Amino acid sequence: MIDPVRIEADYLIETVLPLENAAEIMAGEQSSGTFRQVPGETPELKDRAGARVEHIQELSAHSEPSLPGAAQKAGGPYRTAHVTLSWPLDNLGPSLPNLIATVAGNLFELKPFSGIRLLDVRLPSAFAQAYPGPKFGLEGTRRLSGVHERPIIGTIIKPSVGLDPEDTAALVTRLCEGGIDFIKDDELQADGPYCPFEERVHRVMAAVDACADRTGKKTMVAFNLTGEIDEMRRRHDLVLSAGGTCVMASLTAVGMSGMIALARHSELPIHAHRCGWGALTRAPMLGWDYPAWSKLWRLAGSDHMHVNGIDNKFTESNQSVIASARSLADPMFADAAMTAVPVFSSGQTVHQAAATLQAAGSPDLIVTAGGGIVAHPQGVAAGVEAMRAAYDAASNGISITEHARTHPALATAIKAF
Amino acid sequence: MIDPVRIEADYLIETVLPLENAAEIMAGEQSSGTFRQVPGETPELKDRAGARVEHIQELSAHSEPSLPGAAQKAGGPYRTAHVTLSWPLDNLGPSLPNLIATVAGNLFELKPFSGIRLLDVRLPSAFAQAYPGPKFGLEGTRRLSGVHERPIIGTIIKPSVGLDPEDTAALVTRLCEGGIDFIKDDELQADGPYCPFEERVHRVMAAVDACADRTGKKTMVAFNLTGEIDEMRRRHDLVLSAGGTCVMASLTAVGMSGMIALARHSELPIHAHRCGWGALTRAPMLGWDYPAWSKLWRLAGSDHMHVNGIDNKFTESNQSVIASARSLADPMFADAAMTAVPVFSSGQTVHQAAATLQAAGSPDLIVTAGGGIVAHPQGVAAGVEAMRAAYDAASNGISITEHARTHPALATAIKAF
Repeated sequence: MIDPVRIEADYLIETVLPLENAAEIMAGEQSSGTFRQVPGETPELKDRAGARVEHIQELSAHSEPSLPGAAQKAGGPYRTAHVTLSWPLDNLGPSLPNLIATVAGNLFELKPFSGIRLLDVRLPSAFAQAYPGPKFGLEGTRRLSGVHERPIIGTIIKPSVGLDPEDTAALVTRLCEGGIDFIKDDELQADGPYCPFEERVHRVMAAVDACADRTGKKTMVAFNLTGEIDEMRRRHDLVLSAGGTCVMASLTAVGMSGMIALARHSELPIHAHRCGWGALTRAPMLGWDYPAWSKLWRLAGSDHMHVNGIDNKFTESNQSVIASARSLADPMFADAAMTAVPVFSSGQTVHQAAATLQAAGSPDLIVTAGGGIVAHPQGVAAGVEAMRAAYDAASNGISITEHARTHPALATAIKAF
Repeated sequence: MIDPVRIEADYLIETVLPLENAAEIMAGEQSSGTFRQVPGETPELKDRAGARVEHIQELSAHSEPSLPGAAQKAGGPYRTAHVTLSWPLDNLGPSLPNLIATVAGNLFELKPFSGIRLLDVRLPSAFAQAYPGPKFGLEGTRRLSGVHERPIIGTIIKPSVGLDPEDTAALVTRLCEGGIDFIKDDELQADGPYCPFEERVHRVMAAVDACADRTGKKTMVAFNLTGEIDEMRRRHDLVLSAGGTCVMASLTAVGMSGMIALARHSELPIHAHRCGWGALTRAPMLGWDYPAWSKLWRLAGSDHMHVNGIDNKFTESNQSVIASARSLADPMFADAAMTAVPVFSSGQTVHQAAATLQAAGSPDLIVTAGGGIVAHPQGVAAGVEAMRAAYDAASNGISITEHARTHPALATAIKAF
């Protein structure tokens, strides 16, 4: 890929206006224009600072508007199109927060649009110089977890919230003894008085280390440090000094400036949770597509990014999950790919192993099953064993049913889930 | 109001499931439950950490699902309802970022829901102790701007982006000479090389001070410092040392942890821009209502909050704008109201003065007109004069047409806009 000179963003729009007209309004409102001509907007200024419509591709039309409040016309047609706008980098400089205000700001509310959705962004290389990107990514995660050439099998502490540090550590011991590669806090687990962060880290890391001493395998644990900036830095330092190898933060909860501060400070892989993302994406003609959104967080420094799961318990289609996972491997800059590790999660069990591997297109993924491991009828260790067996089978092109003949924990899981 | 003991959140939901069933799934997923029973979720743990369904009020039903991906049933009915959930404070402690992950996290994607929207939140008083809230609010803003007992009349630097610091300062001089109360950067104006923040602040403040020396009136200028945490703190200090009286940040661009860091540091009123908010709210059965969203940002420390404008250039109805503006006056806690000043903006001209005053229900508001002032045919100073005259008329219950007989700048504005 060649880094563009200008900032570029692709949108899906829906409008009753002529497409060229609508696109020009977008470009104007997101740069030097406003709802009426102002004296200072000279041709020279517009040439210097104006956004440009680079491309319009008409798609299908709807007879009804997808969203309320827009300019209307009885019966439509409400034309849809892909539109690419571009901005001079100098309007804002290589600043991620200001990029959001420019490519995903007021435009979602512009009157001409009964649908408007940001699909993708392409950024000049100045952004690659300005931000760290994932400091660990796949390679660093494999190194720290000791898992090579196969998917990283993970789980989520369940119940999500309500266990105290001692119970959490006891569960972690059982998971580690089962051979789990990766464990994450649930995004609901914060730093409440019943399960304080500091005590949780100390007890959990003691459990991880004790198991590592016995087995030689040190499980990676992503501790949820979501919070204020100073809290996150302090918690990161605590995890690091306790010998931990991963931290987790919820992107929509922390926000962009907070994530950048964490990432600049971090000496550990950042497991980026996307809870809240549904509000930005679930209306098909509004908000964000995952490639645009995840690129900004990759640039900010997310090493692992959630992409939902195949046959998940949520509302997203498998097609969308696959597209999201694969988009994380799209290189962002000519000299800095800034790829993140896809995390498949939500309603995961042994049944989705083959499809998940196929979705990712490689074994370079993390899969986390909460209930799908912890609720195994023969216990947590059997849950881990079954999940690993399912992915071993899938990696070798063997059906889980066949593999289950020699792997009783997998046989039980197939029936139970 | 009495502060609740538990965290409470109100939702609008749409589902084909029995309402009680759907609400219990929400409560479970956002606390101790997951898609299947896990061994550790004992009755005692559930009692301690589980979210509770406090209230369900059935509303109308739809025959088609509002959002894709949800559990379906041919012909529906897709029932809608108001649901109130509550959580023990101890699950997360009084933490705003973790509150977001809890009340507005994964639930937007839960399968049972073809519509799910967060309407309002009520928080235990521990949150009032944990966060500053608006440090200046109305009183501090009136004190620093010297505007009492009437609306604060403001404008936005236009063109939004593309002016250099010198041109910006020249425009500010004309605005101040016209008697403007308040000026804000556009949210697109950041710290690019053509208009660097530092030079902009120095030149603009020199213009403001020079005018104040002549007239005795010091205009409040909200400098957009949106950026990384350290940048925002540094820029805030620069504005403060240059004698500035306000800073502006874009909430969705900075995010919650960044805004908290800025607010804890700030010794100036924070003008909170909501660009990007449309993506969270414009689909009627998804995302956030303004009262829920704005309360979190008030608690974080936003002094001024944008509410769009009456007859705005965007897609929001006047009814929604009015409800938003009024919600900012709802006290958040028994001992700490944490009210923010509503900012009416977007396509504002002299024509909306009376309706805006009525919408706010008091003169305690900021109104910002960009094109509606800067594009006045007789120039910027006449634009300010007309806008002030329009609000004077409205405040005294006089029609702008009548008032225009003795105010020629207003007469021109009435025709021009």
